[in-house]
Amino acid sequence: MSIPNAFYAQSGGVTSVINASACGVIETARRHPDRIGKLYAGRNGIIGALAEELIDTGAESAEAIAALRTTPSGAFGSCRYKLKSLEKNRREYERLIEVFKAHGIGYFFYNGGGDSADTCFKVSQLSQSMGYALQAIHVPKTIDNDLPLTDCCPGFGSVAKYVAVSTIEASFDVRSMAATSTKVFVLEVMGRHAGWIAAAGGLAADQGIPVVVLFPEIEFDKARFLARVDELVKQHGYCSVVVSEGCHHPDGTFLAEQGTRDAFGHAQLGGAAPVVAQMVKDALGHKFHWAVADYLQRAARHIASATDVRQAYELGQRAVELALEGRNAVMPTIERISDAPYAYRLGSAPLESVANVEKPMPRDFISDDGYGITEKCRRYLLPLIEGEDYPAYSGGLPVYATLRNDVVAKKLPAFEIS
Amino acid sequence: MSIPNAFYAQSGGVTSVINASACGVIETARRHPDRIGKLYAGRNGIIGALAEELIDTGAESAEAIAALRTTPSGAFGSCRYKLKSLEKNRREYERLIEVFKAHGIGYFFYNGGGDSADTCFKVSQLSQSMGYALQAIHVPKTIDNDLPLTDCCPGFGSVAKYVAVSTIEASFDVRSMAATSTKVFVLEVMGRHAGWIAAAGGLAADQGIPVVVLFPEIEFDKARFLARVDELVKQHGYCSVVVSEGCHHPDGTFLAEQGTRDAFGHAQLGGAAPVVAQMVKDALGHKFHWAVADYLQRAARHIASATDVRQAYELGQRAVELALEGRNAVMPTIERISDAPYAYRLGSAPLESVANVEKPMPRDFISDDGYGITEKCRRYLLPLIEGEDYPAYSGGLPVYATLRNDVVAKKLPAFEIS
Repeated sequence: MSIPNAFYAQSGGVTSVINASACGVIETARRHPDRIGKLYAGRNGIIGALAEELIDTGAESAEAIAALRTTPSGAFGSCRYKLKSLEKNRREYERLIEVFKAHGIGYFFYNGGGDSADTCFKVSQLSQSMGYALQAIHVPKTIDNDLPLTDCCPGFGSVAKYVAVSTIEASFDVRSMAATSTKVFVLEVMGRHAGWIAAAGGLAADQGIPVVVLFPEIEFDKARFLARVDELVKQHGYCSVVVSEGCHHPDGTFLAEQGTRDAFGHAQLGGAAPVVAQMVKDALGHKFHWAVADYLQRAARHIASATDVRQAYELGQRAVELALEGRNAVMPTIERISDAPYAYRLGSAPLESVANVEKPMPRDFISDDGYGITEKCRRYLLPLIEGEDYPAYSGGLPVYATLRNDVVAKKLPAFEIS
Repeated sequence: MSIPNAFYAQSGGVTSVINASACGVIETARRHPDRIGKLYAGRNGIIGALAEELIDTGAESAEAIAALRTTPSGAFGSCRYKLKSLEKNRREYERLIEVFKAHGIGYFFYNGGGDSADTCFKVSQLSQSMGYALQAIHVPKTIDNDLPLTDCCPGFGSVAKYVAVSTIEASFDVRSMAATSTKVFVLEVMGRHAGWIAAAGGLAADQGIPVVVLFPEIEFDKARFLARVDELVKQHGYCSVVVSEGCHHPDGTFLAEQGTRDAFGHAQLGGAAPVVAQMVKDALGHKFHWAVADYLQRAARHIASATDVRQAYELGQRAVELALEGRNAVMPTIERISDAPYAYRLGSAPLESVANVEKPMPRDFISDDGYGITEKCRRYLLPLIEGEDYPAYSGGLPVYATLRNDVVAKKLPAFEIS
């Protein structure tokens, strides 16, 4: 019997450390040539499997693979492509199995968030019902930090660090200018459904900064919010606001949705930050500045958390170990042992319990007034942003890896992706 | 005769390295107790002098002053306050001289951009006409990099590094996602009048990234711009756009001014980036993401350029040395000797020639098509972003200094600032 090959794919929005997980998967697989044959990566995620575009990671040098640890983004390409349900498009799942069969793939490593965990679980089930031996292991990844059964998700700690550092830096700036100029700075951060990322902005309070956090979990109350900003500006001379893109009015509409139209009738271009900033200006008269971090926050490998990078790597490594231990339909997890000193161990969770379950931020992580974080939240966040793990630089710019990404010859007829 | 005291003030928009200049001024002054008595800092810039709010920097420990080198923002507070012309408000200049006289100040160090150089020059002239011995030295600072007679300005190199690194990181992200999702990323950067900062985004091309830079110097041509984006997306699958906030239409209106109104009739909230992004979406149908860096770029001490930090310190140091050499109405400058290996020496320029002169970006720094930078520009920029100079971290967050800022007792009647 020949040695089974492996398939790895990156899924959904990429992060500054998803390549560290890829590095963990590939380096660990390479240490077991007796158990794992070739390791293919999907070109642009699961699309690469459907299209039979398999990247031969064996063509990449050890140096190139090691460099993935410090390279943001998805080195093999990712995709936003959710497989339909088994009932609606069984053909897609069968195609995956056909491609895996054609290329002797016995291990399926899927690196993504909740949707991907669901796909990974379905693939494992179908392989069983089709009598094809495949071990499907999910490698967690999401800046949204919303996967259940793991203390945290790779990608989140680095975004949290970026948001905390950026909030502190911009707040120092505003503090300098407030006597005659800008008094309120608004930073918009990601997190459509949960306030994990916005919460990191609350860490700025550790450095004495007056900061108001607007969470998706707390219905926006304009009068209360303005009263809080007014109070802080009167007390400190300035304040910063960290607003989650998911912050919304009681009727469910996002702050960014103002129903405005441009000269051509197009809906107003988004951004919760400018809306909040203008609101402050109109009500309180303060000069403002606002920023929207968008991709900068999730791509900021230059300020990644060392804890996050290490865990991303370890979970990739552990995923391969779980496969070698014969496990199937599982996801390696982080189990926190203590906050300070920070200690954790790696565990695992069945995909059945992970798929399509969103972990909300606990209400007791948000202060009673809804505008800050509690000590409990602070103790949770601090270890996740601990440590710096700088990339190498050359000529003033970070040295990020771009792989060869050689695609192996196809063996099957083309498949139309719906 | 008693030893003259010194006055230092920070002016205008702060940067991630203006405190490094403050550090250079203070540490150098402290090495000459026989020539320089007390060193006062203006609380909130020149306003502090007018209001006689003088911070006693002698109350700060050597450690606190050393920490300024790695602390962004203006540690003593800055202000946006341009003194009127001598003719229009001679009282203000006379008040400055009165405050200086009351506190035995013989050295005036003013840390700012073009407007401040003008103020510094006028103060030096008035002190002469009033028969009060004062040496006025301007310490250059501006992220806009538009001061004449110096090769570059402290603050610019670090913003350039931030913009180049952020453009590269976000572009890697888009490249990963482009097969099924975002194809165009737009980053808005500062620079209302000149494209120095936007030019730094052009350095991303060094890493093979298809990037379009929109300069204030080049009138925006929608059809040509869209054709360029279309071409790059067809060729690479994605592209990034770095747009200067100063980019404008041929009639002079900024891209951000769309004349749109919200439900209450308010002008649309700004941002050139969302305008450009929506334009691409409407014409080419590509999914986009956009970011507005705003204060994050000029406060980002965590990714400061080591060259910039060093020069900021050296110019502060040199300003004090120039004073000790008996110079007046001058500004220390950077004179570039060679690009690679980078070499420079410190020089000086008369304030008369610096005040109110803006250095434009040379046209031959912008590529013929107007959307990128030339090799000449690249050779200019690279040394300025060279080297990393990380702040210390504790518990995952940078350790930035907050000073005591003790204000000394007033000796004069209050003065009404207009």
